[in-house]
Amino acid sequence: MTGILSQINSPADLRQLPMRQLEPLAAEIRELILQTVAKNGGHLAANLGVVEMTVALHYAFDTPRDTVVWDVGHQCYAHKILTGRRDSFSGLRQSDGISGFCDADESGYDSFITGHSSDSISLALGLAQAAAIDGERRHTVAVIGDGSLTGGMAYEGLDHAGHLDQRLIIVLNDNEMSINGNVGAVSARLSKLRSAGAYTRLKHGLVRGLQHMGAPGRMLFGVMRRLRDGLKSLLLPHMIFEELGFTYLGPVDGHDIKALVDMFRRAQSYDEPVLIHLHSKKGRGYAPAEQQPERYHGIAPFDPASGELLDPKSAPCYTDIFGQELCELAERDERIIAITAAMADGTGLLPFSRRWPQRFYDVGIAEQHALGFAAGLARGGKRPVVAVYSSFLQRAYDQILEELALQKLPVVLAVDRAGIVGEDGKSHQGIFDISYLRTIPDLTIMAPADGEELRQMLRLALTLDRPAALRYGRGQAAVIDACRQPLQLGKAITVREGADAALIACGHTLSIALEAAILLQQRHQLSVSVINSRFIAPLDIEALHQAAADCHGRLLTIEENVRAGGFGSACAEAVSGCGYDLRLLALPNSFIAQGRPDELRERAGLTAESVAAAVLEYWFANRQADEK
Amino acid sequence: MTGILSQINSPADLRQLPMRQLEPLAAEIRELILQTVAKNGGHLAANLGVVEMTVALHYAFDTPRDTVVWDVGHQCYAHKILTGRRDSFSGLRQSDGISGFCDADESGYDSFITGHSSDSISLALGLAQAAAIDGERRHTVAVIGDGSLTGGMAYEGLDHAGHLDQRLIIVLNDNEMSINGNVGAVSARLSKLRSAGAYTRLKHGLVRGLQHMGAPGRMLFGVMRRLRDGLKSLLLPHMIFEELGFTYLGPVDGHDIKALVDMFRRAQSYDEPVLIHLHSKKGRGYAPAEQQPERYHGIAPFDPASGELLDPKSAPCYTDIFGQELCELAERDERIIAITAAMADGTGLLPFSRRWPQRFYDVGIAEQHALGFAAGLARGGKRPVVAVYSSFLQRAYDQILEELALQKLPVVLAVDRAGIVGEDGKSHQGIFDISYLRTIPDLTIMAPADGEELRQMLRLALTLDRPAALRYGRGQAAVIDACRQPLQLGKAITVREGADAALIACGHTLSIALEAAILLQQRHQLSVSVINSRFIAPLDIEALHQAAADCHGRLLTIEENVRAGGFGSACAEAVSGCGYDLRLLALPNSFIAQGRPDELRERAGLTAESVAAAVLEYWFANRQADEK
Repeated sequence: MTGILSQINSPADLRQLPMRQLEPLAAEIRELILQTVAKNGGHLAANLGVVEMTVALHYAFDTPRDTVVWDVGHQCYAHKILTGRRDSFSGLRQSDGISGFCDADESGYDSFITGHSSDSISLALGLAQAAAIDGERRHTVAVIGDGSLTGGMAYEGLDHAGHLDQRLIIVLNDNEMSINGNVGAVSARLSKLRSAGAYTRLKHGLVRGLQHMGAPGRMLFGVMRRLRDGLKSLLLPHMIFEELGFTYLGPVDGHDIKALVDMFRRAQSYDEPVLIHLHSKKGRGYAPAEQQPERYHGIAPFDPASGELLDPKSAPCYTDIFGQELCELAERDERIIAITAAMADGTGLLPFSRRWPQRFYDVGIAEQHALGFAAGLARGGKRPVVAVYSSFLQRAYDQILEELALQKLPVVLAVDRAGIVGEDGKSHQGIFDISYLRTIPDLTIMAPADGEELRQMLRLALTLDRPAALRYGRGQAAVIDACRQPLQLGKAITVREGADAALIACGHTLSIALEAAILLQQRHQLSVSVINSRFIAPLDIEALHQAAADCHGRLLTIEENVRAGGFGSACAEAVSGCGYDLRLLALPNSFIAQGRPDELRERAGLTAESVAAAVLEYWFANRQADEK
Repeated sequence: MTGILSQINSPADLRQLPMRQLEPLAAEIRELILQTVAKNGGHLAANLGVVEMTVALHYAFDTPRDTVVWDVGHQCYAHKILTGRRDSFSGLRQSDGISGFCDADESGYDSFITGHSSDSISLALGLAQAAAIDGERRHTVAVIGDGSLTGGMAYEGLDHAGHLDQRLIIVLNDNEMSINGNVGAVSARLSKLRSAGAYTRLKHGLVRGLQHMGAPGRMLFGVMRRLRDGLKSLLLPHMIFEELGFTYLGPVDGHDIKALVDMFRRAQSYDEPVLIHLHSKKGRGYAPAEQQPERYHGIAPFDPASGELLDPKSAPCYTDIFGQELCELAERDERIIAITAAMADGTGLLPFSRRWPQRFYDVGIAEQHALGFAAGLARGGKRPVVAVYSSFLQRAYDQILEELALQKLPVVLAVDRAGIVGEDGKSHQGIFDISYLRTIPDLTIMAPADGEELRQMLRLALTLDRPAALRYGRGQAAVIDACRQPLQLGKAITVREGADAALIACGHTLSIALEAAILLQQRHQLSVSVINSRFIAPLDIEALHQAAADCHGRLLTIEENVRAGGFGSACAEAVSGCGYDLRLLALPNSFIAQGRPDELRERAGLTAESVAAAVLEYWFANRQADEK
């Protein structure tokens, strides 16, 4: 590696550079990001948009003594490259490589492991307050995008920060665009001056007042009108932040390094909360990403020359099937409403949103409100379907309990990205949803084992008079002919008969269970029954007893969820005291770092080979015990 | 019953009254509320503060066709009295009586079952949008206090409502006071005009500009200065709402019925989101509550003449013990920080807040931020303790996962009001926390069986290098001498030896288990071992095996948490396949309505008598099975 970047091993090196070298350095960083993401996949557009800001931050602040907290952290690539991870950057988002988000386990420059939206202000405020208590004069910077500002937690943080009135710097990276373009009420307001009622009233009041003054009044009125127009542009964009107790600085061009450095240095002189408003362009410097920032938000490996995906997907994934089926159902039932929290594309709702813009709501990164809003719609006679990633639905646990279940309102939760998601790593794996959803009274929870089952389950969910959740994974949908049995509420089905042991599969682990059963038959002449549970709640306890009766009480559950409180736990709870030898195959109770899904499944023992081995070991142990 | 109120069986009756009768009616309602709360306990101050507003709402709006959504709903007493529940109001907060919050199961005038803060805007927006889709011209009103506005969900709702720009009326009941007086950054801003930077800069700009104009400039400057001052008071208080897309109306006196009715009628003419800002006084009309609104926020039965509690508590409750112990620890460890989400009094933090105001943070009703802020403080070297009610901690489930556990940060969660809380009913019972907390990797979860154990556990939690949660109940703390054994991480203790069966108790159910064991000994000569689990995670699996070995594999767990995913479930999961006859005694998987805690425990089978009966039945069934 040649060039300036090759000499930068830490921000201290960066701070030795003259200002004029920063632009060429940014160009090198941008190229490294582009080439790496093209190879590994990742968050491209956001990272290309913050290269200059990141250089300026580390140039102006004394990191890591001064701390930068990145909201979500998907835009931290330049930060990683500048903070000692230039050479390891080739392992971005790969097993045993570096995370695509901030990770305190990787570097002291990352204060936290990040991944969920809207928390940076709270985290930074805590850090800043700890420093203030200790009398240490250091700076704490939260970098937050306009999309993340739609999350309520960000507002809670702003509110408290304004109240505490201590030193804290918030950099609002306003790219007029969160993940989907139509999101961002805040963003829209940031760029659009409103002709709000107060001004109208002010004007009317002035006109009336000045009319009584004759000529001087008319002169004054002219001056006032010009002043008022100036006032509007002066006051409005930042009034909301000033009202919350922040000093507003900006706006500043997010790609002008010199202006950014000057602004960041100016911000350091304040002993109160400061908000720096900068404008940047997502995808900056790479034309395809500038033109289609949504497409290049999170992207699979692609050819940087053409911008085309290297490996365009062929078979439909669960997300697509959900989106298609919802459109078909919505055609026949106009009560159906679709809701997303800033993930219209990721959750397969784009076709719906285009076809029925009036029945589609993107509420921003606001999962709590999404559920409250859905509850209101349901009470008003609608059939809302909220599509949300498993990991992000964690934000709305209380609302599932209080707004949906307690009210018994028929809202459907389409829980996408359930199970191992892969390269997005620790904060994004959908491995807790079975555990937290099944605590909720009267919630029907289903897990389709293949694409057609997902369709059936969505149809069923929309006929229920209570809330329901569907849990399905990332990636290509299975097709399992043995699942073509009618779907009945709370009923499991047997997809393979056996007598030596029964594998009770939950959702998309059914494929693995079936494959394992075939291996066991072929290699060891073991006859393993395979059950598709279909329902997590209500659980088909009768099917468990039947399987135990058929297979000498030898039951194994298999799921892509942590062991604690998951599907196997539900089975253990249900048949506790029945004397069955129930064994749980599940993910360990821990967070799972980035990697390819197949690699991660292998590590967790959730491949057909591993499951077959586990069943075999179990079967021998069990038979020996029986013989004793 | 005589007077006007006796004729009012519904809002339709109310709307027949002439305006002049509304004041006397309000006085009758106020008296009924005062007398009933004095007898039954309940939320007094908030309800006395909204009597006029409630009368005006039902007078001005065509309820129930027009809908009122009450935030939290603790202020809905006048609403209940006016909407057909005048005569049943005597059963307020009692078993089989009426709920102290809104309850859609009680009345069509209550659109939702409420109890948690900051959701009214989302719910009302959903209702309003459903009506808009159907082309129905009806009004939807959300009534929200300034305290509830500190919750992020309220902001998410405001943000989306402003964006949708449809008809919706929000009544901001600004009593300059949420539950604790020091809460409410928003409230403070609502009443205090800030001399913010924008104005300073405006002034400087004007002064410079006008200086170049000589005498006319000076004259203009004088006019401008007066105008500017007018401008500030005109613009600032409502600018934040206008910025969010609302038309601001007010402020209006919350005790002037005529003004309120006029304002509510005026609001009906808008086809866009409207916010009505009203000022009211908590405790209005009852001097002790006006003077000490905090004390009369939620209050036990009292003598209305003196304002004194009828049954002042004698023995300390867990909350007091927690607060005392935290003060003692904080004396020796200055890293300790206490955080509350608007519940300083309820969580026992008032003594701490008085002694160390600089180490105490009330963040408002913002549980999500409370945890993010605590994470930042912990990363900055502090030892934050967040005291929060079990039911409200549900709001921060994602933050426990992402901000605490994923980061392995040493934050202590003091989970108060765990288990049955009683009269506050469905939305307030702390019956899910074991289930949702135990899904979280690396979280140490403890449940003290008596007051001294709570002290020990708090001390232990503060020595851990990872997050920990303590779960304890409402009410008087037990004193159990058999618990005076050293506390060891992850270790259960045996508090009573036995051989016929083992009762594994979690937290404050240990008293019940011990009492049941004594009954079984006395009446049936059954020798039941009693284990104090102390830890939910890490679970003492060795102790389970030992108890099984000692008691023929006959194990019963007992907990005050729903069965799904709870403590018994954790035990079933842990010893699955070991062949023990493990039986779970837990709360049913459902919400629990209001009532005295002892009544609710009796219904749930969690009294010593019921537990003894369950053990006896289990023991016979089990022995018969053994004999077969």
